[in-house]
Amino acid sequence: MAVTNRYVVITANIDGAPKESDFEVKCETISLLLEPGSNDIIVKNLYVSIDPYQLNRMKSQSSSQVYSTLAAAINPGEAIDAFGVAKVLVSGNPEFEKGDLVVGLIHWGDYSVIKQNGMLNKLDPMGFPLSYQISILGFSGLTAYAGFFELCKPKKGEKVFVSTASGSVGNLVGQYAKLFGCYVVGSAGSNEKVAMLKEKLGFDDAFNYKEEPDLKATLKRYFPNGIDIYFDNVGAEMQEAAIANMNTFGRVAVCGVISEYTNSGRKAAPDMIDVVYRRIKIQGFLAVDFLNVHADFISKTCDHLRAGEMQVLEDISVGVESIPSSLIGLFKGHNIGKKMVQLAEE
Amino acid sequence: MAVTNRYVVITANIDGAPKESDFEVKCETISLLLEPGSNDIIVKNLYVSIDPYQLNRMKSQSSSQVYSTLAAAINPGEAIDAFGVAKVLVSGNPEFEKGDLVVGLIHWGDYSVIKQNGMLNKLDPMGFPLSYQISILGFSGLTAYAGFFELCKPKKGEKVFVSTASGSVGNLVGQYAKLFGCYVVGSAGSNEKVAMLKEKLGFDDAFNYKEEPDLKATLKRYFPNGIDIYFDNVGAEMQEAAIANMNTFGRVAVCGVISEYTNSGRKAAPDMIDVVYRRIKIQGFLAVDFLNVHADFISKTCDHLRAGEMQVLEDISVGVESIPSSLIGLFKGHNIGKKMVQLAEE
Repeated sequence: MAVTNRYVVITANIDGAPKESDFEVKCETISLLLEPGSNDIIVKNLYVSIDPYQLNRMKSQSSSQVYSTLAAAINPGEAIDAFGVAKVLVSGNPEFEKGDLVVGLIHWGDYSVIKQNGMLNKLDPMGFPLSYQISILGFSGLTAYAGFFELCKPKKGEKVFVSTASGSVGNLVGQYAKLFGCYVVGSAGSNEKVAMLKEKLGFDDAFNYKEEPDLKATLKRYFPNGIDIYFDNVGAEMQEAAIANMNTFGRVAVCGVISEYTNSGRKAAPDMIDVVYRRIKIQGFLAVDFLNVHADFISKTCDHLRAGEMQVLEDISVGVESIPSSLIGLFKGHNIGKKMVQLAEE
Repeated sequence: MAVTNRYVVITANIDGAPKESDFEVKCETISLLLEPGSNDIIVKNLYVSIDPYQLNRMKSQSSSQVYSTLAAAINPGEAIDAFGVAKVLVSGNPEFEKGDLVVGLIHWGDYSVIKQNGMLNKLDPMGFPLSYQISILGFSGLTAYAGFFELCKPKKGEKVFVSTASGSVGNLVGQYAKLFGCYVVGSAGSNEKVAMLKEKLGFDDAFNYKEEPDLKATLKRYFPNGIDIYFDNVGAEMQEAAIANMNTFGRVAVCGVISEYTNSGRKAAPDMIDVVYRRIKIQGFLAVDFLNVHADFISKTCDHLRAGEMQVLEDISVGVESIPSSLIGLFKGHNIGKKMVQLAEE
């Protein structure tokens, strides 16, 4: 009545790009016999999400404390919580029973013990693969949906630029924008990704930013009449170039800043004279601010999926041992679509 | 039946800080006899506004073209239009007659000939000094009012930081914010200005930024619980420091970027990770976008003035010859409150 849980920890805080030696896989034995009166839930993890923001939580205390409410620091040696899908093995909580599928905060490991105040919900997959709960129907989807529709408030025919367009959120922003009736151009880091954006996802155009020495000129070429909406996943030079090409009343949704997470690139210094004269809005956001549109998001996105109007891009590795390299790969542009790790078959 | 008009021109485009040799005063004779059928209005200028944005219009074509609709390039040798108050001398336009006071676009000179499509309105001073039409009841006032109330959407008790707080717009933002019930701290460039903000305008606190080597630490000291609203008139390091000290859902109204106008300072490169995690909004604006609240602005501000609740800070030079030094002085921090030039007595 016990299982062996393998789980990933960091060996020390990480303040640059992550590397394999920053991580190790630990083992523990978890008893499946709950103490009398315990409300714990023990789940077998099926899929866990691999997200760039986890790296911010791994930085030394000084830089991550600020974000404590939403992204508590990850301490060396401790299990790492992450969004995922799991199956209940044992439950002391009357709301869950053995065999239930659940979605919410689990851990980067084979099993998770969820205490009373855990963030876990019962899951109805609605006929879709379980992995969709991590990708298009999970936080990546909500981030794309809410960031694009709620923050950017698009109008049909507007010109939309998406960076990291083959990433977990970017590919969905581009698809929502196309379905809504916008003109969409994406940037990505390889010619393979560029071809996929144009051929598989229906972007109007796309380019490989690694082959573009002057991003301002590049965006001028792709948007001769200017950009109305920039969905920013990277910050840095790309943000400056987008703002330099932005139309009056343009909107920049700052979703991620992958250039800053590893402290590798320089920060964006957009021309504030442009921001004033063209009345540009630059706004950061998190999907959790938009739980009020969650039901709409699920309903519309399921409709699109059933109608075959959206593609689901997932990049799935298998096994606990692949978690570190999956995270490391995010910062090297290895993933196409949503990166996740499958820990067990359903 | 003719007058001699002295007016200011630039001798060449200006791409750095302006200096006296960039300007000259030209003379022309204007006939006061209109051609038959002419709709022209000839006015005697009383007050003209001196604004930092005029420098942007004086830059070489390449950099100012972008803003053409709202801030058309000023060409060397040509009369320079500016907001001001004037008195009609001769009118071929049935809507105006001799002796009317008018407000709108006139020129940096003693007289202006306004063509049919000019932006000129009849003026009712409502018992206030005519100069108020350039300062608190003019675009400076509307910029402060709309930028603060419409863009920043303040709540009572919120913490507000204003840079260039003794300038034409900043001093009014601080006063509106105090009257509304916010906690207000301003920055300025001299101890005299700092004292004036605290003693005359009722700011909760103020500091001389020239004496602060570490602006992030300074703002941490003045806002131990964070900044909710930053009314930005300068850009650069101050914007970075304000964003680093900003609370969740903080708002930055980018009103001016005096640090960039003269190309002298480096651009702001705020930490976009802060922008994302704290969901900060950075938005540029122009007063012309808020003409819909103009009536409210006038009504509320006149009420405050009549109740003795607002101070009017004006910095008035006299005579056409003082126009160049007045503009130059804006970029050296010479003015306290709204800078304008009086050209004639009413």
